[in-house]
Amino acid sequence: MNKTHQSEEEFRGISPAEFFYRNRQMAGFGNPTQSVYSTVRELVENSLDTCEDAQRLPRIQVSIQSHSSDVLTVSVADNGAGVPYAHVAEAFGRILYGSKFGYRQKRGTFGLGVTMAVLHGQITTDEPVLVHTRTAEGPGMIFRILIDVKQNIPIVENEEVLKRSGQGTTVTVNLRGDLKRARERITEYLRLTTVASPHARIALVVDDSPTQVMGGFVDSIPELPVVAKPHPRAADLELLRRLIENTRPRNLHDFLVDSFQQLGTRTATRLLRFVAMEPNTQVKTLEREDLSRLGAALRRFDGFSSPDGKSLNPIGRDAFLESIGATFNASVLKYARGASCEWEGNAFAIEGVLAFGDDFPLGDVPTLYRFANRVPLLYNASEDVLFKVLRRVNWSRYGTTGPKPFALFIHFFSTRVPYKAAGKQALAQVPQIAEEALTVYRRLGRSLSKSLKKHDRSLRETKKMKEFSEMFRLVAKYGSALAESDTVPSTTKMVKILFEANKDV
Amino acid sequence: MNKTHQSEEEFRGISPAEFFYRNRQMAGFGNPTQSVYSTVRELVENSLDTCEDAQRLPRIQVSIQSHSSDVLTVSVADNGAGVPYAHVAEAFGRILYGSKFGYRQKRGTFGLGVTMAVLHGQITTDEPVLVHTRTAEGPGMIFRILIDVKQNIPIVENEEVLKRSGQGTTVTVNLRGDLKRARERITEYLRLTTVASPHARIALVVDDSPTQVMGGFVDSIPELPVVAKPHPRAADLELLRRLIENTRPRNLHDFLVDSFQQLGTRTATRLLRFVAMEPNTQVKTLEREDLSRLGAALRRFDGFSSPDGKSLNPIGRDAFLESIGATFNASVLKYARGASCEWEGNAFAIEGVLAFGDDFPLGDVPTLYRFANRVPLLYNASEDVLFKVLRRVNWSRYGTTGPKPFALFIHFFSTRVPYKAAGKQALAQVPQIAEEALTVYRRLGRSLSKSLKKHDRSLRETKKMKEFSEMFRLVAKYGSALAESDTVPSTTKMVKILFEANKDV
Repeated sequence: MNKTHQSEEEFRGISPAEFFYRNRQMAGFGNPTQSVYSTVRELVENSLDTCEDAQRLPRIQVSIQSHSSDVLTVSVADNGAGVPYAHVAEAFGRILYGSKFGYRQKRGTFGLGVTMAVLHGQITTDEPVLVHTRTAEGPGMIFRILIDVKQNIPIVENEEVLKRSGQGTTVTVNLRGDLKRARERITEYLRLTTVASPHARIALVVDDSPTQVMGGFVDSIPELPVVAKPHPRAADLELLRRLIENTRPRNLHDFLVDSFQQLGTRTATRLLRFVAMEPNTQVKTLEREDLSRLGAALRRFDGFSSPDGKSLNPIGRDAFLESIGATFNASVLKYARGASCEWEGNAFAIEGVLAFGDDFPLGDVPTLYRFANRVPLLYNASEDVLFKVLRRVNWSRYGTTGPKPFALFIHFFSTRVPYKAAGKQALAQVPQIAEEALTVYRRLGRSLSKSLKKHDRSLRETKKMKEFSEMFRLVAKYGSALAESDTVPSTTKMVKILFEANKDV
Repeated sequence: MNKTHQSEEEFRGISPAEFFYRNRQMAGFGNPTQSVYSTVRELVENSLDTCEDAQRLPRIQVSIQSHSSDVLTVSVADNGAGVPYAHVAEAFGRILYGSKFGYRQKRGTFGLGVTMAVLHGQITTDEPVLVHTRTAEGPGMIFRILIDVKQNIPIVENEEVLKRSGQGTTVTVNLRGDLKRARERITEYLRLTTVASPHARIALVVDDSPTQVMGGFVDSIPELPVVAKPHPRAADLELLRRLIENTRPRNLHDFLVDSFQQLGTRTATRLLRFVAMEPNTQVKTLEREDLSRLGAALRRFDGFSSPDGKSLNPIGRDAFLESIGATFNASVLKYARGASCEWEGNAFAIEGVLAFGDDFPLGDVPTLYRFANRVPLLYNASEDVLFKVLRRVNWSRYGTTGPKPFALFIHFFSTRVPYKAAGKQALAQVPQIAEEALTVYRRLGRSLSKSLKKHDRSLRETKKMKEFSEMFRLVAKYGSALAESDTVPSTTKMVKILFEANKDV
C-alpha cells in the first residue's frame, strides 16, 4: 500500500488567480491559437465598454507584432476616459476584480477577462503587462504590472508619468501563441464586432501588413442602459439577505417597494396577502423561515411585470441593418425584435436579422452568427442554446424549398449572460431563452418568406408577360397578313391591359 | 446623456464564492435539472476519492428525498477515513479550497465541486450543509455549515459530537431542483460510475422506491497513483519561479535534477549544453532573462522521456471488460490501451473498450461513452475532443459494412484533466489528446474487425458444412438404394474430413 501521497498532501485555499492558472482552458486560454484570439478579444471588449461608459464613439487600434518563434506583442489602444490611476494596479493585476453587481447590460462583467490575458502573458513570457493611460487628470501614466498568482495581488514593477497624446488607455501584453492560425479568427471577430457595434471603428495592424479599418457604420453612440434595481424573480435567498442587511430599519412593505423593480405599492400589498405576511413587520426582525417563505413567494407570485427594458441596449433595427448591409452582400434583409423577457429575474431580449444573398453558403438551415451583449461568439457553436433551437424551426416552410443562401444574425442582450464557461463562447440551455429565440426565428422566417414570395411572383409575372407578348405579336402578325396590311400594329398596350386585368383575379 | 450608472458603480475584489454565485451555470448548476445531477455527482466523486485515499473498497449510499414542490434532500454516505475535524469547515464552506498541486490522478482537483453543491443549496433553500463525519479519533462529529458568499469564508452554525456507526462521512444538502427530470440521468451516471470504478458499490434510494444497488464487480482496490515531480514540459515561468523560490541554495544542474522527473544527470548536462548555461550557476542568482531562456529550453529540448505513468491510475483490461460485460449485453468486447503521453507536461493515457452487441443502437459510428479520471461525462458531448475525433475514423472499414450495434467506452486519465468548464463535462481540444484518441480508436476498430471476420467465417463454415452434410446424406442414401442395402451409412465422418481439408486451402 502506497501512502506517500498522503503525507505530501496539504490543504489550503486556492486564490482565483491560482485556479485560473491551473485551468486556463476554462477561460479561453487552452491552446496557442485560442490564446491569441482571447487576448485580443478581452482587450477589445474592455476598450469598447470603456468608450461607451464615457459616451464616446470608440476608435480602437489593435496591433499585433510577432517576434522570434512564437512570442507576440498584442497592443490595444482606445479613446476612453482612461483608468483612474489608483485603480490600474487592481484592475489589471488581480483576477476577479470588477464593478459591483449592477443590473445593466455590459460586455464584460466578470472582472476576469483582461486579467486572464495578463496572467497568460506572464506565465508564458514572464513579462509584465504595460498599461499606458490618461484620464482627465495629468498628461498620462505608464504602469508595469505582474500578478502574484498565489496570493492574487498585483505587483507594480514600475509606474511613472508618461505623456499620452489623448485620453484613453493602451494595454500591451507579451505572450506566446500561434498568430498564424489565429489570424483569420481575429479578423473575423473584429469584423463581426463592428457589425454588432456599428458605431465603433477598429483598425488592425499585423506586423508589416497594411492597416485594415473596420466599422464606423453609424455616428450615434448607443444610449447607456440604466442600472436597474433587481427584479423580484432574481431574489434568491442570498440576495434577499444582502438587501435586508443593507437596508435601514423599515417595514416589509416599504422594503419590498424600495428594493425591487416592478414592485409598486399595489403589487406589494397583493404579494404580502398572497404569502400571508404582515406589511408592518420590521424587515430586520424576519426569521430564516420567514425569509424562506418570502423567497418562495417572490419566485411563485405571478403578478410581476417583465423586467425593465431600460437596462438593456439593443443594436436596433437601423444600425443592425446598416452594419450587415455594409459588411455582407445581401439582397434581402429582415429585422425582428422580441419582447423584453426575463430569466431568473434578469432582463433580456433577442433581436435578429435574417439575410438572404450570395455571400452566404447554401443550406437548409441558415448560417448562424451569434452575439451576446454585442460580443460575437465564434467558438463552441453547437453547444449554444441559440444554435440548438435553430433546428427546431422548419426552415423549408419559409420561402422557396431546397437549400437557400441565407444567414441569421442573432443578438441576445441581457443584464446577465448565462455563459457556459468563463471563456464566454456559448449560452447555457435556459428555457426562457430557447423559447424566445424560437419566436424570433419564426418571425424572421415568415418575414423572409413574404419577401421571397413577392420576389417569386414578380419573376412569374415577368415570364407570363413575355409569353403574352409573343402570342399577341403573332396574332397581330397573322391578322395583318390576313388583312393584307403591311404594318403590324403594336401589341404592347393590349398585353399590358390584359396583364393588369389578369393580376386582379 | 445618462450617467447615473457611473456614480453607482464601485470597483472591488470579487470572492471566488461571489464569482460562482453569479455564474452558477459555469459550474454545472445552470438549471433545476442539472443542479440535482451536479449535486449528486460532486458528492459521489468526493466520496470515491476519499475511500480510495484510505485504500478501502468504496461502499456509497446515495439517498434523495423530495419534499414539498421542488425542495429535495440529497444525502451521500461513504466509508472513507472521515474528514479531519479541523478541516471540515474549510472543506465544505470555502470555494476553491483543496489539496496542494500534486501531480497524480484524482477525480476532483479544483476544490470547487462539493462547495458548489453547498453554495447552490444555500442560495436556493437558505439551509446549511450537514456534515456528519467520523475519523479514527472519537465517535463522530456533526457540523452545520453555511458560506459567507461575499468573503468566501465558512460560517459554522453548529458543531457537536454525534456518534456515527463507522468511519466515513455523510453529507446532506437541501436544494431546489427538478428531481423528476434529473432522475434518469442520475441513475445513468451512477451506473457508469461503477463501470469506470468496478470496485465501488453504490446504493441509490429515491423516496419510497426500492434500493438500487450498482457495481461491486471486482474486489481489488486500485493502487494509489504516486505523486510525481513535475515533468520539465510543465515548467511555465510561474512554476519555474516557484520551484526556485522553494529550493535551498544550489547550482542549476542539481536544481534541475532534483526538481523534475525525466531529468537525470545526463539529460541535465545535455540540456544545459543545449541552452548554453553554466551547470554551476547558483540557481537563486538567475536573472529574469536567464529564466525565460531556461523556460524556452525546457519546452523545446527533445531529450525528455514521457512523464511517469506511475502517477496514473487506469481501470485496466480485466476490470474494464468485467464491468462493461456485467452492465451491458455485448457479444464482442475489445480492449486497448495507448502509450503514456503528455500534454503540457501532464502525464496522460487513453484506454478503451469497443463493444458489439444487442444493447447498443445501430450506427455508422459507435455510441460513445466518455470517462475522465474514472468520471463518466454525460453532458456537452459534441464539444468534447473525444467526440470530435470519433468522426475522423472511417468505421466502415472495420468489420461488416453498414450500421453496426456497437459502442466505444473511452477512458482518458491524467494528472490534470483539461475540462472546458468548471462543470467538468467536456475535454478541451488538446492536439496530443486528439492524436492519441485517434490511435486507440483505430486499434480498437482493427481488433473488432478481426473478431467480426472470424465470426463471419465461422458462420460461413457452418453453412457450408450443412450443405456438404445434406449432399453426402443424399449420395449415401442413393448409394445404399443402388446397392440394395437397407442401412444408410453415417456420412458425418466423411464430411468432417472433407471440411477440414477444405479449411486448409
